[in-house]
Amino acid sequence: MRFGLTFFPVIGPDEKSPSTYYDECLELSRLADAAGYEHVQVVEHYFSSYGGYSPDPVTLLTAIAAATKNIRVTTGAVVPAFTHPIKLAGKLAMLDNLSHGRLDVGFGRAFLPEEFAAFGVPMSESRSRFAQGVELCRRLWTEDDVVSEYEWAAFGPVTMLPRPYQSPHPPIFVASTTSAQSCAAAGRAGYHLQVVPTVTSRESLQDMLAIYRKARIEAGHQEPPRIQIKYTCYLGEDRARVLEQARRWEHNYIEKMTGAVASWGQTRSADYPGYEQLVAKVAKYDFGKSLADNKVFAGTPDEVGEQVATVAEWFGDDVTLSLQLNPGALPLPDARTAVRLFAEQVAPRFTGIATAAV
Amino acid sequence: MRFGLTFFPVIGPDEKSPSTYYDECLELSRLADAAGYEHVQVVEHYFSSYGGYSPDPVTLLTAIAAATKNIRVTTGAVVPAFTHPIKLAGKLAMLDNLSHGRLDVGFGRAFLPEEFAAFGVPMSESRSRFAQGVELCRRLWTEDDVVSEYEWAAFGPVTMLPRPYQSPHPPIFVASTTSAQSCAAAGRAGYHLQVVPTVTSRESLQDMLAIYRKARIEAGHQEPPRIQIKYTCYLGEDRARVLEQARRWEHNYIEKMTGAVASWGQTRSADYPGYEQLVAKVAKYDFGKSLADNKVFAGTPDEVGEQVATVAEWFGDDVTLSLQLNPGALPLPDARTAVRLFAEQVAPRFTGIATAAV
Repeated sequence: MRFGLTFFPVIGPDEKSPSTYYDECLELSRLADAAGYEHVQVVEHYFSSYGGYSPDPVTLLTAIAAATKNIRVTTGAVVPAFTHPIKLAGKLAMLDNLSHGRLDVGFGRAFLPEEFAAFGVPMSESRSRFAQGVELCRRLWTEDDVVSEYEWAAFGPVTMLPRPYQSPHPPIFVASTTSAQSCAAAGRAGYHLQVVPTVTSRESLQDMLAIYRKARIEAGHQEPPRIQIKYTCYLGEDRARVLEQARRWEHNYIEKMTGAVASWGQTRSADYPGYEQLVAKVAKYDFGKSLADNKVFAGTPDEVGEQVATVAEWFGDDVTLSLQLNPGALPLPDARTAVRLFAEQVAPRFTGIATAAV
Repeated sequence: MRFGLTFFPVIGPDEKSPSTYYDECLELSRLADAAGYEHVQVVEHYFSSYGGYSPDPVTLLTAIAAATKNIRVTTGAVVPAFTHPIKLAGKLAMLDNLSHGRLDVGFGRAFLPEEFAAFGVPMSESRSRFAQGVELCRRLWTEDDVVSEYEWAAFGPVTMLPRPYQSPHPPIFVASTTSAQSCAAAGRAGYHLQVVPTVTSRESLQDMLAIYRKARIEAGHQEPPRIQIKYTCYLGEDRARVLEQARRWEHNYIEKMTGAVASWGQTRSADYPGYEQLVAKVAKYDFGKSLADNKVFAGTPDEVGEQVATVAEWFGDDVTLSLQLNPGALPLPDARTAVRLFAEQVAPRFTGIATAAV
């Protein structure tokens, strides 16, 4: 089992300036790099304190790559529907070169109606733009004289510069939240997988992973799949303090998510079946149940170790956990402590190799 | 007079890998930062060895900002026509925060038909998209509930995160090559100016600057204008070696420019009057004349000092020279030497403050 860091800024300007938040991300990335974490992952969102400090993951990841030596830098995810493929492929290739081949690219469909509206993209095109955008990036990275006949991004023949550092291109991950169909497609294509366990039941996620693994093997992909699962984790030696913070910042997260998903209130999309119920679902959030269901990690190193062990049992010990240890407004010293404690006291239970002390 | 560094990669994969080129940019930026240069500027171009290693200036500038302490990071220029305003304003604001307010934003219209074709943007819209793109970035950086009714980028109301670090927003430069009309508009708006002396006569450029300065004053802008002029500069103590390199790499530049402007061969655009003659103009290039006309700097520190003195006389000693000291395939040690010699032996003739030794 391997472990990475995720940056999903649950924060707005009333709580912390963006420059302070980014400075904290850079410091925590340096700690994680020194402690042997596998990756740092950065999300793409807009406008609200639900992720909005991160409208361009490549920019923050480039600064992180410059501040670190070995850790992989991972988009989690970039949204092809919102950026022209030539621009997206180009800047990802620049980052792959600047980081000397440390880039993993997670691509996602996005799901917030407000974001689609802002970019003037119909939600009914989200699946096609996603699939076509991934395909066009892959082709721009590897082929000469690429021609695209997709109406939203018709071009060519063009030959892109720069090509990526990694050959033939950076590893491709597909972000999927609830769709078995997307998981099967990702498996067939030989892509790696990014999933979020909070929005689906344990059983559904197990089914999704089984479908993904099976499709991957049936399509003849030999290379082991890389599966990244995102968890928010509150970790410290003072149990009462940690649980109080976990409750507080998880409710903060839910409050901000409520604002962000509000645009689903009047929206119906055949491409996002049931998403209009997100608002109601979020309103029913119960921290105690979430913790009991292993949807969020919180506690002492022993307790979090038990939670991670359960995850390994449910989803396989070959998965990689992508940990949000700094949900924005949490004080930096607590996030620092969590990065250190996880590396020193939790990770060694699950990895053959002891991680270096921070 | 002040001095900066420009990165315009005149290079393709047959000559140097992109990662090597970027590593060299980072090293030269560190040297320039330590030596007191004012800025590092990065261009936006696609597809060919005429600038194509730099499809996203923000990405390279973010790595440069992370590698330096004081030097300003400058887009020279980004093209609003090719990137959605929400994306462009967002990543520029991230870089401004990551660099703690060291960002200057140069915006340009672009001029290569091949690039417009690839992005599916009519050249007849280049002026309107430019003006509207700059306006939308400025409004997204400073206003809540921004609404755009421009067809190519209709959105809103949206409130962008993150806001820039600098208040109210990073300094805005407008890149103009030959258009007195653009210079007048930039002056009226109170924007700063980026110009290229190679594509216009000395007299025309003097006229453009006079029009710009006058428009700026008449519109009541009190703050002194910042005018960046780009020059390629070959500088060393071994005169014969430097002149041989200058001749060689300038011809290399012209050869690559010829490829890039080839798409003008059959193109006519009322918005780019006379540009279809670019191919013929470029074919008539004469290095000796270019050097005599002060279109390129080359020689020993004394000789380059004389050339810079002439520029100060022609265009004013308040301008900033943005120096391309590493045109891609030039060996790194020569570029390093040029960065050092300029700071130690040329710049002190024109600045009250001695620059720190590299």
